[in-house]
Amino acid sequence: MSNINELIVSYLAAWNERDDGRREELVARTWTERGTYMDAHRQGVGRAAIDAMIKATQQMFPGYRLRLSSGIEAHNGFARFSWEAGGSAEAPLYLGGTDVVKVADGQLDSVIGFTDAAPAAV
Amino acid sequence: MSNINELIVSYLAAWNERDDGRREELVARTWTERGTYMDAHRQGVGRAAIDAMIKATQQMFPGYRLRLSSGIEAHNGFARFSWEAGGSAEAPLYLGGTDVVKVADGQLDSVIGFTDAAPAAV
Repeated sequence: MSNINELIVSYLAAWNERDDGRREELVARTWTERGTYMDAHRQGVGRAAIDAMIKATQQMFPGYRLRLSSGIEAHNGFARFSWEAGGSAEAPLYLGGTDVVKVADGQLDSVIGFTDAAPAAV
Repeated sequence: MSNINELIVSYLAAWNERDDGRREELVARTWTERGTYMDAHRQGVGRAAIDAMIKATQQMFPGYRLRLSSGIEAHNGFARFSWEAGGSAEAPLYLGGTDVVKVADGQLDSVIGFTDAAPAAV
C-alpha cells in the first residue's frame, strides 16, 4: 500500500465488502499477516479471524456502509480517523467511531476502535 | 489511580501544572515508570522526559490550559478522549486534539496524541 490514505480507504472498503472472496482479498491487502483489530465488542487476531469478525458484524448490521467522516491524522507510524454509518432509511441508526491504527510495512498492524456518541442533532 | 476518569483528570492536570514540584508529582502519579507520550511534534519516554517535555510545551504555549472536550471511551485497557485549549483573549489560538492511551496497573503506559482540525465555527 503506497500511502496511509489508500490504506484507510482499503480498510473501510474491507468493512463494506459483502462478497466473501473480495473481502478476503481486501483484508489481506490491508492488514499484516498477524494484524489485529479490537474494539469494545469484538476482536480479531490474524487475517482469517478479522475477516470472520467483519462478516459477523455485517450480518448484525445489514444495509450499513462505513464512510470516512474526518481527515486522517498520521505521525510516527500511527494514524487516527473517524467514520460514520447509517442515518438513512435503509440503515436508520446513526453510528460513528474513531479508529487508531498502527502501521507496519505499509499495512495495518493493529487497529483500536472506539465508538463515538451520536451527534446531538441526528 | 482508582479509575480511568480520575486518571485522565490527573493527566490533564499534569499538562496544566506550571509548578515544577507539583507537576513532577502529577506525572509520577499518572504515568508508569517507563510510560511514554508521543504526538507529531514531541515525545517523552519515562517520567523525567515526559515532565521536561510538558514543561517545554508550556513555555511554548503560555496562558493555555487543556480541558476535556469529550466523553472518555474505554475498553480492554485502552481509552480515548478529546481535549481543547485556547479560544480566549489570553490564549487566542484554538487548539484541540484526541489522545489514545494504554493503561497498565492503573497508570498510563503509553499516550498517542493527535491534533484535531479547528472546528469551523471557532
